[in-house]
Amino acid sequence: MQITGEMLIGARAVRGSLQAIHAINPASGEQMQPAFGGGSGDEVNQACALAWQAFDGYRETLPQTRALFLEAIADNILALGDTLVERAMAESGLPRARIEGERGRTMGQLRLFASVVRAGNWLDVRIDPALPERAPLPRADLRLRKIPLGPVAVFGASNFPLAFSVAGGDTASALAAGCPVVVKAHSAHPGTSELVGRAIQQAVADAGLPEGVFSLLFGSGREVGSALVAHPAIKAVGFTGSRSGGTALMQIAANRAEPIPVYAEMSSINPVFLLPAALQARGESIARGFVGSLAMGAGQFCTNPGLVIAQEGAALDAFLHTAAAALADVAAQTMLTPGIHQAYSEGVTQLNSNTAVAAVGSGIAGQGPNQCQAGLYVTTAQAFLTDESLGAEIFGASSLVIKCRSTDEFAQVAEHLEGQLTATLQLDDADLALAQALLPVLERKAGRLLCNGYPTGVEVCHAMVHGGPYPATSDSRSTSVGSAAIERFLRPVSYQDLPQALLPLALRDENPLGVRRLLDGQNDIG
Amino acid sequence: MQITGEMLIGARAVRGSLQAIHAINPASGEQMQPAFGGGSGDEVNQACALAWQAFDGYRETLPQTRALFLEAIADNILALGDTLVERAMAESGLPRARIEGERGRTMGQLRLFASVVRAGNWLDVRIDPALPERAPLPRADLRLRKIPLGPVAVFGASNFPLAFSVAGGDTASALAAGCPVVVKAHSAHPGTSELVGRAIQQAVADAGLPEGVFSLLFGSGREVGSALVAHPAIKAVGFTGSRSGGTALMQIAANRAEPIPVYAEMSSINPVFLLPAALQARGESIARGFVGSLAMGAGQFCTNPGLVIAQEGAALDAFLHTAAAALADVAAQTMLTPGIHQAYSEGVTQLNSNTAVAAVGSGIAGQGPNQCQAGLYVTTAQAFLTDESLGAEIFGASSLVIKCRSTDEFAQVAEHLEGQLTATLQLDDADLALAQALLPVLERKAGRLLCNGYPTGVEVCHAMVHGGPYPATSDSRSTSVGSAAIERFLRPVSYQDLPQALLPLALRDENPLGVRRLLDGQNDIG
Repeated sequence: MQITGEMLIGARAVRGSLQAIHAINPASGEQMQPAFGGGSGDEVNQACALAWQAFDGYRETLPQTRALFLEAIADNILALGDTLVERAMAESGLPRARIEGERGRTMGQLRLFASVVRAGNWLDVRIDPALPERAPLPRADLRLRKIPLGPVAVFGASNFPLAFSVAGGDTASALAAGCPVVVKAHSAHPGTSELVGRAIQQAVADAGLPEGVFSLLFGSGREVGSALVAHPAIKAVGFTGSRSGGTALMQIAANRAEPIPVYAEMSSINPVFLLPAALQARGESIARGFVGSLAMGAGQFCTNPGLVIAQEGAALDAFLHTAAAALADVAAQTMLTPGIHQAYSEGVTQLNSNTAVAAVGSGIAGQGPNQCQAGLYVTTAQAFLTDESLGAEIFGASSLVIKCRSTDEFAQVAEHLEGQLTATLQLDDADLALAQALLPVLERKAGRLLCNGYPTGVEVCHAMVHGGPYPATSDSRSTSVGSAAIERFLRPVSYQDLPQALLPLALRDENPLGVRRLLDGQNDIG
Repeated sequence: MQITGEMLIGARAVRGSLQAIHAINPASGEQMQPAFGGGSGDEVNQACALAWQAFDGYRETLPQTRALFLEAIADNILALGDTLVERAMAESGLPRARIEGERGRTMGQLRLFASVVRAGNWLDVRIDPALPERAPLPRADLRLRKIPLGPVAVFGASNFPLAFSVAGGDTASALAAGCPVVVKAHSAHPGTSELVGRAIQQAVADAGLPEGVFSLLFGSGREVGSALVAHPAIKAVGFTGSRSGGTALMQIAANRAEPIPVYAEMSSINPVFLLPAALQARGESIARGFVGSLAMGAGQFCTNPGLVIAQEGAALDAFLHTAAAALADVAAQTMLTPGIHQAYSEGVTQLNSNTAVAAVGSGIAGQGPNQCQAGLYVTTAQAFLTDESLGAEIFGASSLVIKCRSTDEFAQVAEHLEGQLTATLQLDDADLALAQALLPVLERKAGRLLCNGYPTGVEVCHAMVHGGPYPATSDSRSTSVGSAAIERFLRPVSYQDLPQALLPLALRDENPLGVRRLLDGQNDIG
């Protein structure tokens, strides 16, 4: 498979005429070939028009058709072989094992959604049969199913060139729901994007689906993305990235003639609470586990543990000592883009210049360009509670320890937090009462609560929530990882007294799709 | 029970100090007693602070506690007896049978949500057990449940002084979800609101719940409502009313430091398609049924059939003739408020002055103040497609017939429509192919599709959707009627590796609440 630098608009490959994008190899700082022509409003309009034309046909494909299509995308991605792996490594600076693992995750997500589509719980079928004899008024026959919202705009993420980009979780869940997808590729990995885009384009053709089910656009500035979110044919948006980028899209969506939902996964510092008994008993092993989580992938995860809360004293001192020692062995890692590296450096510089903050330890300094030196800092709860800047996300392998005078300050710190993707408790049996007191606060603040683990490593499964109150995400009612992500792209429709012949298959009496139903208020698992 | 004119802030009754509200009896135009003091920002703050304090405790009440509380509200409303019925009749101009029916509907909603809370499907429990032996990495134990969003602001609706006001569907579903509620009463029926508010206040006290679970505020302008939606403790909004009112709340919510969801049910003209065979075979009976739906309650329903689409010809002429004759017998009915009557008169005047529109018939002219004279109008598809004003809602018993040259224009008219709550097909067997072709368009446009019925009469059940694409509602992913309305006020939280003792009851191994679960991807009905 050749990388041509073209956008994919339905079945065509189209060279953009506006400002060209070049990938930069962050490990060397060098510009990569080829040039990717930037799209214009014309291409946005073409992709959206095709997506709109494809919508009615695609959304009524049988579950099995859609499932096979998702599985074919996974197969086509694997078939790209080392061409894909090597391009993604070069564009992201990520090592082979990580890219291969992420490829597996991407394929796993597509296959999970294939199974979800087949199972059909997402249809949320409810049937309230007619009650013709009911007094004073008879009840009509009412049946509910969910249908897809319409074409979805997906924005590729910098930190997951495969699993949260062209064929990532947003695309997989939107396609599973029955929504055509128009992807705006992330400019950090255009070659990876084109390769994966072609894998999807091929799967669309092979499945005989309408070409507009998938398109891929490039654009160097915000114009293409803004035009996409503003386009009347787009009915929802999936985004993973910065808080400023996400809130800008939220504003565009809210100001449309027809406002649409935006699912933006933005910023989170993922507090880790070290409860006293656990800290006392296992401080050293927690410290080593924590540093492993902090430094993984140069800390470029939404769930990176950016905040640690603990009570001052000898046990915390020992924890910090062990953490600093572990950190000293952490090699510098190439960050994803020069921009991310620069933002990290600025964030760390700001921390270093804050008189309320002390450095605890750091990783090995980088030699090459764009390398992340891991860092651990400490401050007091009082400083944290009064200085908003200390709660801001620093994207990269940096974390801040909040020293509390007593565990009474834990809840204050927790209440002070903005919305988070995760909150972690390191606890032993003797900590249960304190944990129980913190849980209600943390439930209000975060989408996922963990005990005795680390927030990095987001399992793709049914019970995962990768979401949380603003600004962790734009919409706390949703998750962007796991099978529940499909629900973001659906809405309920009720059918009253339709003849069987007009009813969608999912709602017919004989349950031809074999789906779970709520029959007159009773669960029926099909 | 005495009506005092006071707001209810938690357990207290508080007289507002700002501009007083007087209900107006629309049948006489007379001002009613007592005066209801308008609330200020202070009372908004007090109510919201109490709601916030109540939240953590209320949301973890056992399902049975919450269900009994909802049932107690229903009982307390019934116990208000004729005091409530007569006050609601006087404030709304609605007849006794309608108010008593609406009271039954209100109590039925509360009891439905009690049963929903007990059944527990809303918890959406998912359990993915740990896989410690999985390679290359073990899987943690992951469990998901839904929790309530937080305190909810509810706005009383003018047209359902009971079923969509203080203890209406929004309040019932929010309380069921575990959210405290702060209601802004509609100024058209403050006495009804106070009575029902006191019924809820009593139920809160009797159940031993935190007082902040419920508050009721008055305010004559938009200040109280705006302050309520902007308050940081409020996490979602339920509203039924005008498009301008709903979009104003959407803007306030989107511009908060923490944006929140707004569930606004706004405007809909509810198209009714008369397919040719049905029109030919049953035109007269359809006409009579249609006029009944149109004139019911002076047409003051969100689902009033404001648009009829049919092919020109003898059958349509006969339909119009019958409809005009039926309409001529429709008595004038008092509208809910002088403002609604004036807006109706202006809408009808505008229709009458449109040269592309002809009057087909009208009801009996009113004698008293604020009476609605029903009206039926006709225009062409070409005029409808080019004049945006013809698609605007006229709240009241007015409907516009779109004469098409052929049924080919049906889909064009359908595509031209804004989002709707409902779309109706009158059809016979010979119309099935045409209906099949229209359905995909109508599914994209509306939240409920009906055959051979009329859109008024919204069943409160599990399969109901009273929602639809913008501007029918602000959020097409939701319904404001029926048991699925509870889902508006919930968000998922995932629990990773929590010890059993820390897990919420719903997620424990032994399933103590006996709820439906998704166990490792398999349905288990508990």
